Amino acid sequence: MATQARKTLVGNVDSHVLAFTIGKDPQLDLKLAEVDCIGSAAHVTMLAGLDLGKGPLFTPSEHAAILAALRDIIGTIRAGTFKITATDQDVHLAVERLLSRSVGEIGRRIHTARSRNDQVATDLRLFAKTELMDLMDEGARLAAALLTFAKRYERVPMVGRTHMQPAMPSSVGVWASAHAESLLDDMGLIMSAYDYNDRCPLGSAAGYGVPLPIDRQLTSDLLGFAAPQHNVLYAGNARGKCETVILSACAQVMLTLSRLAEDLILFTTPEMPYFTLPAAFCTGSSIMPQKQNPDVAELVRAKASRVMGHLTAAMGVVKGLPSGYNRDLQEVKEPFMEGVETTRSCLTVMAQMIGGMTANRPALEAAFTTGVFAADRALELVAEGLPFRDAYQQVKANLDALESVRPAAAIAQKVHLGAAAGLDLALLKQRVQAVGRFTKDERKQYYRCISALLGARYPEMRE
Amino acid sequence: MATQARKTLVGNVDSHVLAFTIGKDPQLDLKLAEVDCIGSAAHVTMLAGLDLGKGPLFTPSEHAAILAALRDIIGTIRAGTFKITATDQDVHLAVERLLSRSVGEIGRRIHTARSRNDQVATDLRLFAKTELMDLMDEGARLAAALLTFAKRYERVPMVGRTHMQPAMPSSVGVWASAHAESLLDDMGLIMSAYDYNDRCPLGSAAGYGVPLPIDRQLTSDLLGFAAPQHNVLYAGNARGKCETVILSACAQVMLTLSRLAEDLILFTTPEMPYFTLPAAFCTGSSIMPQKQNPDVAELVRAKASRVMGHLTAAMGVVKGLPSGYNRDLQEVKEPFMEGVETTRSCLTVMAQMIGGMTANRPALEAAFTTGVFAADRALELVAEGLPFRDAYQQVKANLDALESVRPAAAIAQKVHLGAAAGLDLALLKQRVQAVGRFTKDERKQYYRCISALLGARYPEMRE
Amino acid sequence: MATQARKTLVGNVDSHVLAFTIGKDPQLDLKLAEVDCIGSAAHVTMLAGLDLGKGPLFTPSEHAAILAALRDIIGTIRAGTFKITATDQDVHLAVERLLSRSVGEIGRRIHTARSRNDQVATDLRLFAKTELMDLMDEGARLAAALLTFAKRYERVPMVGRTHMQPAMPSSVGVWASAHAESLLDDMGLIMSAYDYNDRCPLGSAAGYGVPLPIDRQLTSDLLGFAAPQHNVLYAGNARGKCETVILSACAQVMLTLSRLAEDLILFTTPEMPYFTLPAAFCTGSSIMPQKQNPDVAELVRAKASRVMGHLTAAMGVVKGLPSGYNRDLQEVKEPFMEGVETTRSCLTVMAQMIGGMTANRPALEAAFTTGVFAADRALELVAEGLPFRDAYQQVKANLDALESVRPAAAIAQKVHLGAAAGLDLALLKQRVQAVGRFTKDERKQYYRCISALLGARYPEMRE
Amino acid sequence: MATQARKTLVGNVDSHVLAFTIGKDPQLDLKLAEVDCIGSAAHVTMLAGLDLGKGPLFTPSEHAAILAALRDIIGTIRAGTFKITATDQDVHLAVERLLSRSVGEIGRRIHTARSRNDQVATDLRLFAKTELMDLMDEGARLAAALLTFAKRYERVPMVGRTHMQPAMPSSVGVWASAHAESLLDDMGLIMSAYDYNDRCPLGSAAGYGVPLPIDRQLTSDLLGFAAPQHNVLYAGNARGKCETVILSACAQVMLTLSRLAEDLILFTTPEMPYFTLPAAFCTGSSIMPQKQNPDVAELVRAKASRVMGHLTAAMGVVKGLPSGYNRDLQEVKEPFMEGVETTRSCLTVMAQMIGGMTANRPALEAAFTTGVFAADRALELVAEGLPFRDAYQQVKANLDALESVRPAAAIAQKVHLGAAAGLDLALLKQRVQAVGRFTKDERKQYYRCISALLGARYPEMRE
Repeated sequence: MATQARKTLVGNVDSHVLAFTIGKDPQLDLKLAEVDCIGSAAHVTMLAGLDLGKGPLFTPSEHAAILAALRDIIGTIRAGTFKITATDQDVHLAVERLLSRSVGEIGRRIHTARSRNDQVATDLRLFAKTELMDLMDEGARLAAALLTFAKRYERVPMVGRTHMQPAMPSSVGVWASAHAESLLDDMGLIMSAYDYNDRCPLGSAAGYGVPLPIDRQLTSDLLGFAAPQHNVLYAGNARGKCETVILSACAQVMLTLSRLAEDLILFTTPEMPYFTLPAAFCTGSSIMPQKQNPDVAELVRAKASRVMGHLTAAMGVVKGLPSGYNRDLQEVKEPFMEGVETTRSCLTVMAQMIGGMTANRPALEAAFTTGVFAADRALELVAEGLPFRDAYQQVKANLDALESVRPAAAIAQKVHLGAAAGLDLALLKQRVQAVGRFTKDERKQYYRCISALLGARYPEMRE
Repeated sequence: MATQARKTLVGNVDSHVLAFTIGKDPQLDLKLAEVDCIGSAAHVTMLAGLDLGKGPLFTPSEHAAILAALRDIIGTIRAGTFKITATDQDVHLAVERLLSRSVGEIGRRIHTARSRNDQVATDLRLFAKTELMDLMDEGARLAAALLTFAKRYERVPMVGRTHMQPAMPSSVGVWASAHAESLLDDMGLIMSAYDYNDRCPLGSAAGYGVPLPIDRQLTSDLLGFAAPQHNVLYAGNARGKCETVILSACAQVMLTLSRLAEDLILFTTPEMPYFTLPAAFCTGSSIMPQKQNPDVAELVRAKASRVMGHLTAAMGVVKGLPSGYNRDLQEVKEPFMEGVETTRSCLTVMAQMIGGMTANRPALEAAFTTGVFAADRALELVAEGLPFRDAYQQVKANLDALESVRPAAAIAQKVHLGAAAGLDLALLKQRVQAVGRFTKDERKQYYRCISALLGARYPEMRE
Repeated sequence: MATQARKTLVGNVDSHVLAFTIGKDPQLDLKLAEVDCIGSAAHVTMLAGLDLGKGPLFTPSEHAAILAALRDIIGTIRAGTFKITATDQDVHLAVERLLSRSVGEIGRRIHTARSRNDQVATDLRLFAKTELMDLMDEGARLAAALLTFAKRYERVPMVGRTHMQPAMPSSVGVWASAHAESLLDDMGLIMSAYDYNDRCPLGSAAGYGVPLPIDRQLTSDLLGFAAPQHNVLYAGNARGKCETVILSACAQVMLTLSRLAEDLILFTTPEMPYFTLPAAFCTGSSIMPQKQNPDVAELVRAKASRVMGHLTAAMGVVKGLPSGYNRDLQEVKEPFMEGVETTRSCLTVMAQMIGGMTANRPALEAAFTTGVFAADRALELVAEGLPFRDAYQQVKANLDALESVRPAAAIAQKVHLGAAAGLDLALLKQRVQAVGRFTKDERKQYYRCISALLGARYPEMRE
Repeated sequence: MATQARKTLVGNVDSHVLAFTIGKDPQLDLKLAEVDCIGSAAHVTMLAGLDLGKGPLFTPSEHAAILAALRDIIGTIRAGTFKITATDQDVHLAVERLLSRSVGEIGRRIHTARSRNDQVATDLRLFAKTELMDLMDEGARLAAALLTFAKRYERVPMVGRTHMQPAMPSSVGVWASAHAESLLDDMGLIMSAYDYNDRCPLGSAAGYGVPLPIDRQLTSDLLGFAAPQHNVLYAGNARGKCETVILSACAQVMLTLSRLAEDLILFTTPEMPYFTLPAAFCTGSSIMPQKQNPDVAELVRAKASRVMGHLTAAMGVVKGLPSGYNRDLQEVKEPFMEGVETTRSCLTVMAQMIGGMTANRPALEAAFTTGVFAADRALELVAEGLPFRDAYQQVKANLDALESVRPAAAIAQKVHLGAAAGLDLALLKQRVQAVGRFTKDERKQYYRCISALLGARYPEMRE
């Protein structure tokens, strides 16, 4: 019977064609199931208050029945028994099916004044909202792990490299907190993507609004969005685009991680054994007993390219589309979800790995050769009044004289802001905490809204 | 116990880390399961013939037992009961597990003189081999459908457009066979990728060969490859790269399809109703009863960007990797498989859709305005001796004079090679057939080799 | 003699190799020449105040002489006579050469306590700063043009499309302001990139700081940056990354423009003649007298892919680089500069074109068919109490009944937030003004800093 | 006066708009100037033989005059005095301008029966033809250099690495010839792109042919193309696509080079000092006297991402374009030219660098630790009859026993095809020579055609 309905609504589509057009939606949409229910709860609550002169679209008891049914469906989703069938095609129709089963014809009425277009757009933004909060938390966790490592080995000397070659005295503190600061700046970009995402497209229907006086500000407030997206056509056009904004921020996180990963791969070779990764994060080889391979770091490095591939795909889909909904947008869903999830999992695994990593002080000190001190020595001579070029030549001619320099002493001289002896790790720590505070506040506010909407303590769903 | 083995072989890895490092391999590798068995059959057959002075590594009966066990595993795979567990990590160890269960310790010995690196490289090339043959068949099918359409409407006038605007007289025959010819050229690129892929990496082990006199030419022959890849390090380095070669060819197919799709989307609007798509390939709207949407074409257009995203990801992973195996390469597997599969499914669905499409002659003719005839008229005047610029001005000043021109007459004048009245559709048809002959011959030769190797009629697997 | 110096400093490099390594720097760096002088002014001013116990590095008169020389060089740059020779290799050495010519050996001393690495990083951020301000101004200008168009034709009916097909009643106001709102959101992303960029890397030297107590906060303040970048290694690592952050924001602008361009191309075809582009923005055809081609829109659409290509290139260069300076970063310069410049020029030309565009009311109204009113009618029936499915069927069966609906009446019913009769164009106008205010304030503050630093009214460079 | 013509032909376009639409064409098109003359020579020669019933379009003396004028223009181009003005817009109109100046009105008549669309498409294919031949020559040169290096150090032991860590015994011969073989396979892909390119679009005009019986086979033959492109619309649609096919092949070359570059960067660090780059290919640091930086390798690695960016851009432009010429295609020109040129220059510089590189045998041998011999030893034990797992454990427990193994002995055991002692460098050498023979033959045939066409010995242009 559901099939009949399907056929009536969108025509009698060939089954192979249907399989092609549905694609992976039945799997991917599972991640949207709960937010789809939440979006429906907001929509029906708004409709229930709508006065069209002939009584409300939903009586209070109908409204309550629908909310109860939606809560039940959320229970089903959490129990893992919610399924999206090929007949359903997508999560919206699967939820509608269950709803109709519970509350009959009124279940269908909730589709009034909206379209699957604004529904999925809303779902994706609600999904992104919590994903981005999680991502910020994981980013803060990795930054914290890097800062802990930086603190622990703050003044342990480490050769600074350029062109991958030993160059100048530096420290483990500088190395580790450089990656932390990069990540913190990335969190700023994630936050900017979070703000971009924090607009409610609900009520834009198929991109052209509806001839009913719906209250878009209300649904936006009910769902905890910062504001409704204003223009209805833009609300539709922003689908796909919003995902690329988020993927761009994710790509920045992955760029940072790829460089951290490269360092770890390099600095755990026998030739540059500066760090030791926790054994549980390495794999051996089936054929080479002596190996301890940095597989996790290699995969993170590669996954950076995967996320860039997702970004390329998503941008490519959106580019040059005419205004209004185009089915092309469906193809943004998978790269978007994969890209966000990959980024988050990389942050998590890196935080764990850095947490268990140790630095090898003897190996780090052994890497200091006279040449490494040369540039600094030339600068000192300049400061003593020698012309730069003369200083340079004098150092070059007397590299042996640098043999007695101790690495620790060399870095102790770099006292200015942000150098080995001038790091302000507390400042970075504060930025980590600020990220944590932001997500905590946002979560609290979001949960409060959804709890009020559903009439149950969210996210636990207890009454 | 399998877990124990796992721990012994590659160390005691944290379970979350294991999940991260395994990624989607357990699902993705299912597509490699059958070819993994075939690769193992070739390897063990070669080993069985190896004379190391102390008797062969496998006695004839051990060899036969292993082949029988591999045939059984293939049976399991086809029955859909083959599983790759988290303990297995990948298809190679899953097959090894089943093999050991059947034939005991000798099952493990087949890992002699190879590594998972050359195993997976071989698997991927065998997988790609048949995928590319399928892809060529589907490409030929779509080209044939386009040529049938071109033949059916060969001299039906159609306005040729530039800058998306009506420009000059053309025909449906020109339009449809243009896409067919593009696709046939793409098939040439697929064939070139097929040749690139047709080299056997088996025996390169972890990228540095083995200290045993293995016969790499033999395994290559047994598996039906054109030749072994020569250099063992290159055999390893080519992993990832080979996939990007194939994805590049797929991207070309998708570029062609994306332009065909764009035309179909445009030429089925009410304003340019040149073609009618089969109803079963369109969907309606849940909220707009009058719509017949070209969803399939839109998805194909979008999927072109997806395949480009896969290519970007794969190239990004490979770029700048140091020689020798790096775990990064695992991340090429998914974009590769997805890219090939997407391309094939798009060819299939487009062939079906074009097969059911019709052209609307009245609408096509109605689109001819006087302006469309202008350029041709100017050329005729030039041919009659008028200076080009004068001809151009004369036509511009007398557009009304072109009202009596009949579209069919206009295109009948374009008699030169490849124009509306000079198309050689038979030539293109021959090229379609050549593609079909190529894959037929290749398949036959491949099946013959694998049948001989397995001792069973392949691909049916009957004795 | 300069050549000698060159050879002494970086070795005797083969001239072909030098050409390869220098690449396009001599041309590209011209865009950095003025900011390179400004950066040097800040550095030397800081050094002049540095007390190393043996008197300052520069006496007040030496300091004044260098500032005067830098002002002269800026004069040369503005006069177009500044050149970067192959011997110079890059802008830094070209400026140093001129400086030494003016002030002798003290000119060389300004290289104390810095490296070409932090110099170019600082230059690029100063360059980006003003480029991004220009870009925001141009973005605001286009948004304003779109809003003016929206206001002028606010209630002119326009068929809203989905799947490129006529779908529902909408308005020109909705269409134009949708693109404006998209652009305004993009400006938010540009602003976020502006903040990311607004950190001063000067003093990080080659990425590991210097053994002198330089004052990085001071140089940051002198240059008008919001703050110094803290960690010296991160200051180096952020090169390349900062450019990709900016390119990501540019790519978002281009995505918006590509969709606007696609609409313009489509809606100026004879079949959908909704808009008329100003004649001066169209080109004809050398062979087809009747054509008015939307070349500008086509180029903008294509340039969106160019900017994405620049982003892909830049991200690909940065991905997986080990910490510390790598020469690879040089290859980010061109895609960065090209990407930013392309984005700005597209905004400019589109603002001009939209400014001269007109809407064709009769054609827009003629596009309304009964089907376009169907969805809205179904919704009205629902609001009147009919079950959704029944409403849907009833409308479908009586499309003829919709023939009397007037488009203007149809859109007048869409009164809710952001729909045809519920647009708040004033709100968007305010957002445009806010962008303008932001850049005005930033510019003022930046010019004040640089004027103080150079001892001349900047940017005019009058005393 | 030329300006007048310009205005008459394509309308009165705003000068800023003109600048935007012309873009970099006046510079980029300089590379097409000579082939544009050649293409015109073929077209006019064909027209001169065309019998339209009213005498030929060009008398023999007119034909001769035009050829002479074209030869003169080629002289101008080679003298470096050929200019494309903003009024010209592009190379075609610049050549036409010079031609008209020489031969008057008949100069304009050569535009008969063609369009700038098929002209530029033809130009680009002629340009690509020689570029690809050059690229194959440079590729062969680098492969030869790598093989010479491989031969010179064929049996010098080198630690084979996986996961960037020391893994198994290998040789410099294996390392160098692995990159050579990769490059040779890439040359196969370049050759496939060459074939794809080797079709003549001339005569397709604006994509819809002309109403005159032009002889497209003749112009194709005159220009030395393998065949005309058949379908006129496809001849136009293939523009852009052909460039992406070539860029894909270039990207493969760059992937190979990026991995070679990464190895060189890694293996010239003080920690892994396996190779010494020629001093003339390294740069020092302005601040660090001891450095010898592998800048060339770093730039090559980065340029791989640049070429991928060009590919992404070009594919993005082409994707989803409707059939027929779109102005978007102009934006493919720059990434195409840049991509091909970058690839060629990287091949050239790498061939020179490898030519001067030396291997450091002591350092290479010192890198062998006991662990490196472990896997091979385990395999020997297996070959002696021990179960694999036992062999593995036994080796792991007795790594010290491997201290006496000599690296040279270890690699001497790897006798099978493609391993350290089983390399067939002569085979690869033959493949290098085959590439050289191919380009030599192609060049000869091409020069013969163009010489006949122009009536002068080409490429020298002596009579």
